Amino acid sequence: MNLLLLLPDDFISSDRVQIRDRRLQHLNKVINTKPGDTLKAGLINGGIGSAEIMTIDSDVAELRVELSGTAPPSLALNLILALPRPKMLRRILQATTILGIKSIHLIGSWRVEKSYWQSPFLSAEKIHEQLILGLEQAIDTKLPEVHLHPYFKPFAEDELNTIAGNSTRLVAHPSANAGIPSQTQEAVTLAIGPEGGFIPYEIEKFTELGFAAVSLGPRILTVEVAVSSLISRLAVNLEPETHSVQN
Amino acid sequence: MNLLLLLPDDFISSDRVQIRDRRLQHLNKVINTKPGDTLKAGLINGGIGSAEIMTIDSDVAELRVELSGTAPPSLALNLILALPRPKMLRRILQATTILGIKSIHLIGSWRVEKSYWQSPFLSAEKIHEQLILGLEQAIDTKLPEVHLHPYFKPFAEDELNTIAGNSTRLVAHPSANAGIPSQTQEAVTLAIGPEGGFIPYEIEKFTELGFAAVSLGPRILTVEVAVSSLISRLAVNLEPETHSVQN
Repeated sequence: MNLLLLLPDDFISSDRVQIRDRRLQHLNKVINTKPGDTLKAGLINGGIGSAEIMTIDSDVAELRVELSGTAPPSLALNLILALPRPKMLRRILQATTILGIKSIHLIGSWRVEKSYWQSPFLSAEKIHEQLILGLEQAIDTKLPEVHLHPYFKPFAEDELNTIAGNSTRLVAHPSANAGIPSQTQEAVTLAIGPEGGFIPYEIEKFTELGFAAVSLGPRILTVEVAVSSLISRLAVNLEPETHSVQN
Repeated sequence: MNLLLLLPDDFISSDRVQIRDRRLQHLNKVINTKPGDTLKAGLINGGIGSAEIMTIDSDVAELRVELSGTAPPSLALNLILALPRPKMLRRILQATTILGIKSIHLIGSWRVEKSYWQSPFLSAEKIHEQLILGLEQAIDTKLPEVHLHPYFKPFAEDELNTIAGNSTRLVAHPSANAGIPSQTQEAVTLAIGPEGGFIPYEIEKFTELGFAAVSLGPRILTVEVAVSSLISRLAVNLEPETHSVQN
């Protein structure tokens, strides 16, 4: 927890917050704060600054906050990801949040096991938890949006084109001939398949909509490594986001 | 397991192997192979090709192998990494192996907990396991070398300069002003600190030896995300390795 992430409900006046949940435990047990200590704080989807501990005990901490700074720039990268195994999903959601992704679409695909959609980790609450952990790690306040699309065909036919808007459209595909482009538009929509890849029908749906199939080389990456790797390589070209990915 | 990784001891003649351990279990239980099936196979530190199942039961599988291909190019990147938490170490060793790193130096640092060095995950056998899993995932045969240096000072003063040789020398440091260089030598030595970063004394030791401090931006990455991210960004500039990193 590199950032104390505050919610609107924490505020008892314009510059005072009271903290009671796992964040209080962290203040007490992990970083062992005392009155007078200051730490980095931010308001979810708001400013970043500092918080000074006024009082703290095992029930509640009261802090004075000053949040005049701004969150770091987001990445103008829409991620479309075939739903990974639930255990891996948690780490991937944290990693993408840490890297600055703000828009994630988890989609069905032929090689995504149907049972994954029943996982408790896909509840809004569990997803939210991972996003918060990512923001606290990265010192960011802007909460990513995660959308679920269990059925590939309606997603590809009815939603994908709008989601990608006027961004550069890329789909990672192990057998593609092209590498990651060294130049892209100001925004990118990147699709990454499941372990084993998208099937030809699915790749066709992407390419019909102007998605260029790109390869990361001869190595077969895990989805987790592929996500961090592709995002990091594309991030070099991306301007910090000054406008929405969608047009 | 995208590759059946063979050991010299598996060979019973020049083109025949017998498999008995967890690889046999995988053939029987996970991918459910039958005589006549072929799969990708490679010899550790050797060629890559295919293997055909001749006979298989619950005790042993015999396969005919043909390994005339070569492993994918390695990355000419020496990784120097402050020893991470043991649980994270396993995933990091897999990820670096998947990405093609062949030389990893795990080092002590002020902010590395001393107890990490006692972890059973640091045994040669446990490290080897993770490297093998990485090779099987990436379809690679060249086993990385992992070196342990528990004491920072003798490492920095007696070994670091030789290890880095004539490669581009970089140390990741959150408060650095410079970003990742867009051009590097044909080889890079990259140092990544622990959670919380290297302390000033340690950074000084690196910079004295010509390591340029580079930042990944305002976000605080986990070590795991930083490793994949930095490697992937540097890999763009690196030629596939045609000679050793050391001069």
